[in-house]
Order: sequence, then C-alpha cells, then structure tokens
Amino acid sequence: MNQDSQITALQQELATLKRQVTALEDINAIRHLQYAYGYYIDKCLYDEAVDLFADECETYFLNGIYKGKEGVRRLYCTWFREHFTEGYNGPIDGFLLDHLIMQDIIHIDEDGTTARIRARCFMQGGVHRSAPRKVPNFPEQNLEGGIYENIFVKEDGIWKIKVLNYNMLWQADMPEGWAHTEAHLMPLTRTFPEDPRGPDALLDHAPETWPRTRVVPFHYAHPVTGKMWQPVPREKV
Amino acid sequence: MNQDSQITALQQELATLKRQVTALEDINAIRHLQYAYGYYIDKCLYDEAVDLFADECETYFLNGIYKGKEGVRRLYCTWFREHFTEGYNGPIDGFLLDHLIMQDIIHIDEDGTTARIRARCFMQGGVHRSAPRKVPNFPEQNLEGGIYENIFVKEDGIWKIKVLNYNMLWQADMPEGWAHTEAHLMPLTRTFPEDPRGPDALLDHAPETWPRTRVVPFHYAHPVTGKMWQPVPREKV
Amino acid sequence: MNQDSQITALQQELATLKRQVTALEDINAIRHLQYAYGYYIDKCLYDEAVDLFADECETYFLNGIYKGKEGVRRLYCTWFREHFTEGYNGPIDGFLLDHLIMQDIIHIDEDGTTARIRARCFMQGGVHRSAPRKVPNFPEQNLEGGIYENIFVKEDGIWKIKVLNYNMLWQADMPEGWAHTEAHLMPLTRTFPEDPRGPDALLDHAPETWPRTRVVPFHYAHPVTGKMWQPVPREKV
Repeated sequence: MNQDSQITALQQELATLKRQVTALEDINAIRHLQYAYGYYIDKCLYDEAVDLFADECETYFLNGIYKGKEGVRRLYCTWFREHFTEGYNGPIDGFLLDHLIMQDIIHIDEDGTTARIRARCFMQGGVHRSAPRKVPNFPEQNLEGGIYENIFVKEDGIWKIKVLNYNMLWQADMPEGWAHTEAHLMPLTRTFPEDPRGPDALLDHAPETWPRTRVVPFHYAHPVTGKMWQPVPREKV
Repeated sequence: MNQDSQITALQQELATLKRQVTALEDINAIRHLQYAYGYYIDKCLYDEAVDLFADECETYFLNGIYKGKEGVRRLYCTWFREHFTEGYNGPIDGFLLDHLIMQDIIHIDEDGTTARIRARCFMQGGVHRSAPRKVPNFPEQNLEGGIYENIFVKEDGIWKIKVLNYNMLWQADMPEGWAHTEAHLMPLTRTFPEDPRGPDALLDHAPETWPRTRVVPFHYAHPVTGKMWQPVPREKV
Repeated sequence: MNQDSQITALQQELATLKRQVTALEDINAIRHLQYAYGYYIDKCLYDEAVDLFADECETYFLNGIYKGKEGVRRLYCTWFREHFTEGYNGPIDGFLLDHLIMQDIIHIDEDGTTARIRARCFMQGGVHRSAPRKVPNFPEQNLEGGIYENIFVKEDGIWKIKVLNYNMLWQADMPEGWAHTEAHLMPLTRTFPEDPRGPDALLDHAPETWPRTRVVPFHYAHPVTGKMWQPVPREKV
C-alpha cells in the first residue's frame, strides 16, 4: 500500500473511532443527566429539574401527559412544589423523598442526536412526626418502585430530556409493606385548565399499578437473540 | 522521523486506541447484559433470562450448580416459573420480585473474550394479600441482599453469560426485619433427576447465609495495592 | 493538503482522541474505586478500605475531619473496627452493614489527575437477635441514606481517594421508619487525642441530619444551564 492509501485508511479508521468515542462520551453524559435529575428531585429542586428538559418535551406521569416546557413546569413547579414544599424550591424539614436511580441501559441512535434509557427508580418518601405541616394525601412513610423509559435529545452539543416516561409500578406504606397496601397514587381524571395542576392529555387507559403488574416495554432488543419483547397473553398459558 | 515511520507510528497508536475503545464498549455491553438480566427476572421473563446464556454455561444458586443450557433452563423455567407463576412467562398480579442490580465492577481479560463482573442485588419480594394464589414456601414479603460474581464470554461479537454465580447473603421478612429473621432459602439436598427441579451437582459445602456472614471473593485485586484478598481466620484476631 | 499536513493533522486528532479515551478509562477506574470501597465497608474490611486512600487524604464523617492516612486509619481501624467487630478485619456473624453505592456522577479535571464524584449510599445495618455480642449504641436494625462528594487523585497512574466526604442525611430504625425516628449518630464533641477515636478537627457547624434536611452542594454545574447551584434562603419563599 502506498503512502496515500495508508493515510486515507488512517483517516477513515480515525473517523470511525471518533464516532465510537463520541458515543461512549454521550452514554456517560446521558447517565449523568438522568442521575442529576434524581438528585434534584430528592431535594425538591424543581426549577433545576425542569431546566433539564428540551423545549419540545413531554412527561408521562400516571395516566397524564404533560406537554412542552409549560406542561412539564406545571407538573413539577405547580403540582409537586406547591403540594410538597408550599412553593419553596428546595428541601423542607421533615419531608423525605429520596429518588434512587440505578440500572441504566442506554442506547444512542445512529445519528447521535437521540438516545433512550431504561432505568430503575426506588424511592423512600414520608413526613416526619415532628413536621409542623403534613403533606395532604401523602403517606406517612412509603416505598415506591418504578421504571423509566426516557428519550433524550442532543441540541447544540448538550443532551436534554425530551420524553420522561416514568412508570410507577408499586407503592407500599411502611411498615405494613407491599403485601398489605396498594399503590395510593390514583389515575388522573381531569386535564388542564379544568384542573389547574392537570396534564394536557390523558392516556386512553391508565397504566396498571400494584397489586396489578405489567412489563414496561423495553426500548432495546434482547441483547443475545436480537428479538424485541412481545407480551404473551395470560390466557394463553 | 520520515513519513514512513510516522505512518507506522500512527498505525500502531491507532491499533492500541482501537483495543481500548473496544474494551470500553465491551464494559458497557456487559453492564447492559447484567442489568437486562435483572429486568427480565423482575417480571418473570424466564425465557428471556435463559436466552442471555451461552451454550456452555453454569448457574450457581444456593449450594446447587445448574450445568449447561438445559440445567439453567431447569432452574429458571421449571423451578422458578412453575413455582412463581404456574408456568406463565411473565408477571402475574399480586406477585412482586424486584431485582435491583447496581455497583458493578467489570474487568475484561487481555484477549477480549472473557469478562468478570462483581455486582450487587437488592430484592423486594412478596405476595399481595389480594392474590388468589399464594406461592408455596414464599414469604409474604421480604428483602434480600446478594452479590454476583459472574463470568461472561464473547461469541461471534455478542456477550453472553457463561457463569452466573449468585451469592444470596441475607433475607429478611418484613416488617420483622433482619435482626429477627434468618434467610429462609435452605440448601438443596438432592440433584436432578432425583429432584426434577434439582441442580446437576451440589457444592461440597453450602455457602453460609444470614445470620452467618462471609466475604464473596473478589475477582479483582485491590485497586491500589494490587493484592488479591485473602481471608483472615477469625481465631487469629 | 499535502502528505506532511495530513500526517500532522492525524497526529493531532489522535492525540485528542487519546486524551478522550484516557478520560473514559479514568471514569471507569474511579467508579470501580468508589464501588470497591462500598464492598470493603460491607464486610468490615477496614484495612482494605484505608489502603484505597492517598497519603495526603481526609475523611469527613459527621462533623469530624480525619486527616492524613493516620487520621483515616483511626476512623476505620480504631473507631469502626474496634466498635463493630472487636478488632477483627472482616465480617462477624450476626452483624449486617450493607453499603449500597449507586448513581455516580464523575468529572475529571482538565489535567487528568484530579476527579470528583457524587454518589449515593443506601445502607442496611443491624445486629441479629442471635448475636452473642451487641454492638454498643448501635440500632437493632436501621436504614441510612447519604451522599458522597469525594475527590480522587491519580498518583503514578493509580487513582486513590483524596477526600472522602460522606454526608449522612437520614437514619431510620426499622420497622418504626423514618417518620418516627431521628438520625441516631450525633455530632462529635472532642478531637484526638483527647478522644482516642476522635477526629483531628471539627467543622464549625455540624451538618444537619434528619428530620432536618439539606442539599449537599453539587461539584458540577447544571448539565443544561451550566449554572452552579445556589441555595435559596427559606425565608425568601
């Protein structure tokens, strides 16, 4: 091979390697973004959470869809913040809402501008007996388990949340536990503006929660067989 | 340095870098594989879990060794699936078995075809009071902590589980808690085919479980001293 | 572009890519180091934990600062080890102290020799009813949540812990739970050598713990806005 061909080959290999390295950096950036979200939610830093979203965005919460920055802000900064901290953007004494995030599986699309994550959330929430103010309709103390299947978008080199799709699967009051309690968060019934904290739209069917169970569809194919997961009807067993 | 030497140097550096990038991609792929396993086990997707294994594989569970695809399938698709979901490959209502996986430490062998992981599992399991069917010998609700030390193999470019070595360390009924309960999973006593759900072989000694404690040996040397961990006999203290 | 320019361009791009790949490897190494720490603490392997530190190091624990290898050793190998395992370097029966680490956000400084991590710790601790020896002043069983903001240093190619800054945020006896208990670990009042297990210095103000709440400052800017987090005084609400 002559020098010109060798240089061309090197340039091509380097370009391939660059794309691979960018993808690896992107995976780390997306993991950090998802984890940063968890740390903000922990401490009722709702402005910071909303700032993680792209302008074109959606949040799925229970059976509600909050659309665009305005809808997402309504969920976090109106509903959650007014409900949990009476409007203060930060933690208040006696209120716990730890939002542990783990087990992230991230894939980046070929063009490098869209990414998907599956991640797990395990929460501890509650209000201390000493707290002067009780959060209405909030359990004294509970655990929650859920699955994220989120979509991220890269805009001007910065990854942002495009779709936050949180699937609350179970809640359990403590110490009674999951054998003795049902999820207390109920499906939403009204949209905005009828409900000033409501979503922009409702799903046709409210996702089932504990003691019902369901599989949150995987954004990725099976790592070995390459097949996408298909539900098996229970009556077929 | 002349152009030929410069090109040769570039080719060598690029080859080194390629191996490093492949190793980084492999670490992500192995993490995803281990995490995917957790999501399948969560939801009783036992066919999908078994499909993650290489043909030559083993699963260590309690004091049993399940050998080859057939043995591994016997564990997941006969024992677990018949026991937990009466043979349905998916979640049933009122049955919780969340399988949180985290804290993974992954190392890839020099040849790039074998890898080892240490990871932690934290489980929440139980059966809701409303469930029409109680799982036999399964606690109403419990927590479990364990350590994986698994081995992966790359076959035709795809990482698969070669050895799944799960070390259940403690189980605790809730709300009694770990101070007041012992691990309820007992060592196995019979092998297949005498026990149609049994392992292919038994370990000489059943690994100890709570309230006994033990260190699951680390596949890696100490990150700073480079020494492999050696147990210190307790009588030596 | 002539061959010389092409070769120069390739050399420069390769050098950039090398730095990126080194940073990616460093992030993995730091994650492993932090996770390895968790596995050692789990099992009372205090010598191994101390060996993860650089010679110039500090540990922040409660309101105490333990300085240098000697101070750090006093914390782990004098206080913890004598208190928890009567001096044995390893797990004893009936004593649980699982130290789950997750949700790590890692950044490496430009020069590649200093790194910072934010990570979360979720602990399960306790002493089994069958244990012949009760650990003094240690709860029968409890949960703990905390945040690490640690600093690492690379010395001779090996990452080590330079500053371990653990922020215990809440503790909850089980089954009473976080609504009904306060953190039981109290601020330290005396330094070494007056207290033979004491820290080298005390913080001016003891960090608040449950049912008080606080934000552990983030080492990183907001991933999208690029702003560093600033606390909002609660009276300003």
